[in-house]
Amino acid sequence: MFSETCARARRATRTLAVATTDEKRSALRRCAAALSEHEARILRENALDVADARARGTKDALVDRLALDAGRLSAMAGAVRAIAEQDDPVGETIEDRRRPNGLRVRRVRVPLGVIGMIYEARPNVTAEAAALCFMAGNAVILRGGSDAKRTNVAIAEAVRGALPDDVRDAVQLLADSGREGVLEMVRAEGAIDLVIPRGGEALIRFVTENARVPVVQHYKGVCHLFVDAGADVAMATEIAKNGKLSRPGVCNALECLLVDAADAARLLPPIARALVLGGCELRGCERTIALVPEAKPASPGDFGFEFLDKILAVRVVDGLDGALAHIRQFGSGHTEAICTSDASRADRFRREVDAACVVVNASTRFHDGGELGLGAEIGIATSRLHWRGPMGLEALTTMKWIVDGEGQVRT
Amino acid sequence: MFSETCARARRATRTLAVATTDEKRSALRRCAAALSEHEARILRENALDVADARARGTKDALVDRLALDAGRLSAMAGAVRAIAEQDDPVGETIEDRRRPNGLRVRRVRVPLGVIGMIYEARPNVTAEAAALCFMAGNAVILRGGSDAKRTNVAIAEAVRGALPDDVRDAVQLLADSGREGVLEMVRAEGAIDLVIPRGGEALIRFVTENARVPVVQHYKGVCHLFVDAGADVAMATEIAKNGKLSRPGVCNALECLLVDAADAARLLPPIARALVLGGCELRGCERTIALVPEAKPASPGDFGFEFLDKILAVRVVDGLDGALAHIRQFGSGHTEAICTSDASRADRFRREVDAACVVVNASTRFHDGGELGLGAEIGIATSRLHWRGPMGLEALTTMKWIVDGEGQVRT
Repeated sequence: MFSETCARARRATRTLAVATTDEKRSALRRCAAALSEHEARILRENALDVADARARGTKDALVDRLALDAGRLSAMAGAVRAIAEQDDPVGETIEDRRRPNGLRVRRVRVPLGVIGMIYEARPNVTAEAAALCFMAGNAVILRGGSDAKRTNVAIAEAVRGALPDDVRDAVQLLADSGREGVLEMVRAEGAIDLVIPRGGEALIRFVTENARVPVVQHYKGVCHLFVDAGADVAMATEIAKNGKLSRPGVCNALECLLVDAADAARLLPPIARALVLGGCELRGCERTIALVPEAKPASPGDFGFEFLDKILAVRVVDGLDGALAHIRQFGSGHTEAICTSDASRADRFRREVDAACVVVNASTRFHDGGELGLGAEIGIATSRLHWRGPMGLEALTTMKWIVDGEGQVRT
Repeated sequence: MFSETCARARRATRTLAVATTDEKRSALRRCAAALSEHEARILRENALDVADARARGTKDALVDRLALDAGRLSAMAGAVRAIAEQDDPVGETIEDRRRPNGLRVRRVRVPLGVIGMIYEARPNVTAEAAALCFMAGNAVILRGGSDAKRTNVAIAEAVRGALPDDVRDAVQLLADSGREGVLEMVRAEGAIDLVIPRGGEALIRFVTENARVPVVQHYKGVCHLFVDAGADVAMATEIAKNGKLSRPGVCNALECLLVDAADAARLLPPIARALVLGGCELRGCERTIALVPEAKPASPGDFGFEFLDKILAVRVVDGLDGALAHIRQFGSGHTEAICTSDASRADRFRREVDAACVVVNASTRFHDGGELGLGAEIGIATSRLHWRGPMGLEALTTMKWIVDGEGQVRT
């Protein structure tokens, strides 16, 4: 029963919340070793999941996300080992001050509690989410997708088997039971402290609309690059190519290019040519078409759209104000970039753009926990509460206040 | 219409989010002055609200929370002035690091956006919530209780009149329209970034169960004091008296006293005597009754109950483990205190108690924004996400990541 799963998770957090960093690290190192030791079984179960998916006519791209081999499994174990080496946020003092009445007031980081993780195809999430939640002192209840069910069971059993008895239930995997199972989890107020959904927009909306527990979510990444008048055209071209072509299917990929009208005749044709040569389809506004004959006319729905493919919307805008207005209307609050050689416009862009990550003269693809120096991430939050951007260990903690006195009372 | 109110609030945040600290401070100083200038009108409208409340047979305690006089109005203006002097969290750099590829990665505080504030009788919330939200760069939509409706309108008009035109809609007051109006606000996903409900438990539950926007809430404060074996009996007595008797109706008041059985014969009788002399009714477990004849037998419902009155539940427990188990079962995660002379047990209490505020050798009444050095607070959060404890200006912000490069792309 789900309520028993939650109760076991809560009991495990009591021990885990006060475990030392070294205890957590050595448990995770044993988990990583167990993933390697269970290689044969995990790959066998994965082959069955993959065969089922193929038999159902699943698209190649999805089968690829699901499929494991020795190299991918070893990368998964490596990710768990890397998480074990990260700084432990639990117990960290955020603030420490002395009040005039002599009270010492501290704010310290503590684990969040019991985290519900709802995700779709990729089985590496099972191991990485378990390791991240564990290292931050939390229990996690994993609800993976049905496509990967045998693989997830094999991974979870390897991980759980390597955990000490008194914290084994800090990692629990639930069988996928469709939307009903998701509802059960997102309505478990008091039993689940946070739900993190990772998957398509439909899943995220369903979770948000039905949740009574807090949710940190990420709808989509409609990322823009604004190329400012006077920008270095070679730099802008490399940033645009990297944003759109290096991995079009991810949330920090570029979906729309904005170019300042004052300098578009110089900037846009070479950038467009490089993208087209890279196999990208361009969908442009009228002013774009006038400068780039290869571009198709954009329909209104192309702006603000997450293509997740080698397709890019292109619009010529009137200066920084035009770019800011476009981003305000069509941006998703994920990642917004500017390429500029003007310091004051860079500064206005940094201040006025309201997004989880604002990038100046670099690729939007850097908005990622590893690239920003956080280590592994459990997801990227585009919500504003609790956390925004890549969620590493610190995002999986809360805090408590500690007040130390020598008998003080309030007057 | 509510959607227009939200749109006006969002527009105001664009200007306010990039306002300087000095601009926000001088606007708030003008608001404080306006409250004094409008004294006659505010007090006249308040007298009408008070008369209505009396005519409806409202309890004296509630009428007292509603009623203003020149002194209370001046304190309200003083609170607004004090908020204007607090450190501005907006723009503060939380983190600043250089990546191996030369990227500079910063995390900076930015305003949350549009905040919905739902509250009941006390009209000073109108001015203080407006000032706190404004200073942190946010727009606030205030939905006050119907008891104070004329007073709230007069206060909001004074405040709005003192704000510059382009940020006036950062403070908007809605007429109370009952539960329907609350529903409208808590379902305004995308338009409202955070709802803060302040009021009775029924209001908070209604908001939480119906919310699609994030909510930071505070159900109740069932605060415990554990008096450890070997504790200084004079210190324990003062802490217990202060916790229970200084202001029994507030959330950080003491509701339950726990005493270690190993030393209860020495500790409990004098503490109990002092409380009874102070007018407190004691409701004790069997072991308490054996030591304190004045105590009535506690019924099971007395443990975990928020009396908000001069009534205290008392239980003799078996050592620190017994106290921790009791708090785990009955605590509300608000404030938990220990009185002890043993450093290692103090440390275990600090680590193992899961509450917004853990107090060692001081009164639970210190769990308050002003007392902990935050300045004014918009409420106390017992939820775990986003913020926990007294919510000052920093709790009204979120963050964004800023990445600065010189053309870096991801390999």
